[in-house]
Amino acid sequence: MTDDIGAFVPGPRVRVEGRTGGPLQGLTFAAKDLFDVAGVPTGGGNHDWPTGRPVPSRHSWAVQTLLDAGATLIGKTITDEVSLGILGENAFDGTPVNTRAPGRVPGGSSSGSAAAVAAGLCDTALGTDTGGSVRVPASFCGLYGIRPTHGRIDVTGMLPQAPTSDTTGWFARDAETFARVSSVMLGEAIPTVLPTRLIVAVDAFGFADANVAAALQPMVKRLATLIGSSREEVMAPPGLSAWARAQRMLQPVEAYNTFKSWLDERNPRFAFSVAKALVMGSLVPPAEQAWAQLMRQEVRARVAYLLPAGTILCLPTTPFPAPLVGQALSVLDPLRDRITCLCAQGGHAGHPQVSLPGTTVDGLPVGLSIIGPRGSDATLVAVAKALEATT
Amino acid sequence: MTDDIGAFVPGPRVRVEGRTGGPLQGLTFAAKDLFDVAGVPTGGGNHDWPTGRPVPSRHSWAVQTLLDAGATLIGKTITDEVSLGILGENAFDGTPVNTRAPGRVPGGSSSGSAAAVAAGLCDTALGTDTGGSVRVPASFCGLYGIRPTHGRIDVTGMLPQAPTSDTTGWFARDAETFARVSSVMLGEAIPTVLPTRLIVAVDAFGFADANVAAALQPMVKRLATLIGSSREEVMAPPGLSAWARAQRMLQPVEAYNTFKSWLDERNPRFAFSVAKALVMGSLVPPAEQAWAQLMRQEVRARVAYLLPAGTILCLPTTPFPAPLVGQALSVLDPLRDRITCLCAQGGHAGHPQVSLPGTTVDGLPVGLSIIGPRGSDATLVAVAKALEATT
Repeated sequence: MTDDIGAFVPGPRVRVEGRTGGPLQGLTFAAKDLFDVAGVPTGGGNHDWPTGRPVPSRHSWAVQTLLDAGATLIGKTITDEVSLGILGENAFDGTPVNTRAPGRVPGGSSSGSAAAVAAGLCDTALGTDTGGSVRVPASFCGLYGIRPTHGRIDVTGMLPQAPTSDTTGWFARDAETFARVSSVMLGEAIPTVLPTRLIVAVDAFGFADANVAAALQPMVKRLATLIGSSREEVMAPPGLSAWARAQRMLQPVEAYNTFKSWLDERNPRFAFSVAKALVMGSLVPPAEQAWAQLMRQEVRARVAYLLPAGTILCLPTTPFPAPLVGQALSVLDPLRDRITCLCAQGGHAGHPQVSLPGTTVDGLPVGLSIIGPRGSDATLVAVAKALEATT
Repeated sequence: MTDDIGAFVPGPRVRVEGRTGGPLQGLTFAAKDLFDVAGVPTGGGNHDWPTGRPVPSRHSWAVQTLLDAGATLIGKTITDEVSLGILGENAFDGTPVNTRAPGRVPGGSSSGSAAAVAAGLCDTALGTDTGGSVRVPASFCGLYGIRPTHGRIDVTGMLPQAPTSDTTGWFARDAETFARVSSVMLGEAIPTVLPTRLIVAVDAFGFADANVAAALQPMVKRLATLIGSSREEVMAPPGLSAWARAQRMLQPVEAYNTFKSWLDERNPRFAFSVAKALVMGSLVPPAEQAWAQLMRQEVRARVAYLLPAGTILCLPTTPFPAPLVGQALSVLDPLRDRITCLCAQGGHAGHPQVSLPGTTVDGLPVGLSIIGPRGSDATLVAVAKALEATT
């Protein structure tokens, strides 16, 4: 199998056979280069990250779990540097091709994993999601993607960025494969009982391009029909932009704290935008951090209140389809901020979220997301599977 | 001639023969990779700088001038990225070896030029000095080095950083070569008449390590004897640290403005410390810039007042010899700030300054600097020559 789309990290391709006889036997997977694979340096999307670090002697929990279940690892994939990025353009390793949206970014930071699955190079792939790094590429590449409940999936052997928001996620092209992989990763069967109530985050739809919001309506209707729910609309009281600003304050602070001794000792190379994010993280005054923490606390309570058992909330995964490759930072920064308005609740509240493919705008994929109560990950996957069966 | 000290930029070595019959015939020189050489991409010490730029079709003024005078160009030398650095450690191209101080940095940003001259790989070399980038490596490598009067040397074809402080300078191992090259670059004969009054910047000596200040005293005495001057002591009224802080504010602002469209359009890769300097330059409030500009105006008047015709001022070029290679940023940052306390007057006031070798501390070179009135560059070179003749 060739890879002419630049999804895998440069150099010899890693391959580890899955165990025979498991539930995922016959499936192939790739792992974002934040996950340890025994005997292979973890690159982290940055050429100076591996320097001076021991080569992992054990697989990360996520890689080991998929191998034990029978899936075969066929490569490590490109990521935005140390997972700091939402568009998938890596200045060192290049931009994986989004075969579903030619000429456009794949989304990041789990860029190579999404691109590889979208191109059919593997059946599923591991990503990470701190501020949107699974959800955004799932939307841009037309895939199923999950950000699980924060704290649920063991992150041993995964390169951290902002631990209070970091999660391990995965992608698939079809709901059946998505459900098989999810069942293994979540360690539970995918239920048959579905939620009974659908609420619609109208303020989130307000951040989307008008044609995106319109294009997603048929899927919202199918969801409501599937669940047998009337349409209820909700808003995030202080405004999603306030939530986004608080997340954009807390996440870089935490990322800076994660990496600061490395920055100090190694003075590593970064694309300017990545270094800038870290510098800005180092400059947030403690009083600002404290107010942002209070907002996070409020978000958690609000999202938990909105989502009692049996309820799911839907919103556009991203406000628009994938932007063009190679645009200036002054063009991309405002786009990233709008994306953050939709994604910040994930990092704040830690609820599970699944992005559902199936909608396009001008031929470009864009995802509809469903969010459920903490721990309802498998139920969201069940909705994905049931919804696909209605098409 | 081999170069096993990593002074030259990677890749094929550039060579351009000098014109026959000029005053520098028989000399060889190298040019910092900020100077255009026709037909060769100008690297600027950053792997993303040349991308998308035309290859220079003409030599820079400085290179052309040395070639016309008969010197032969034998290579382009490593520089700190876009000349932003004072220590000479380049994360992309490596750190040129300081053969005069093994295991220690060469100083920057004209690191490769100083290292190449110090190692005897060429007779002279072009550098640039914005905040100390000729003076510091001259001190650390035990060389003659000049920062000419600001605005005097044509900077056509030289990659700018902070144009209100940028200058073209050069290095040599001995005063005779230094004088020959200086005469060509300055376009005037080196005079025989020397200054008649020496003043000593006691506050600058106060920033030096005690053993450095002590080690430089014999040379200060020889200078006073040479000139026939009594020793007079002066201080910079608001304090050199206030001058340094103003320069450290204005220079990154100007550098950021020089590079901001490139940063925006290309999102280039940098070592973290370089990107951080640019980000910090983007964040200085206009009111702070305005106060720093007023201080610069005050510095100019003060330095001009201190240095009427016939007077020179002496100070340590650097507060200490070259630091060890490979230290953490948290170790290097305070060292850089102390260096800036001695160098900032150059960027502010634009007076000519020559660093004189000949002193060592524990075997490590450290320079004594002389500063004269604007336009007295050739007189400072004459002092260097006369002083060497007294040894």
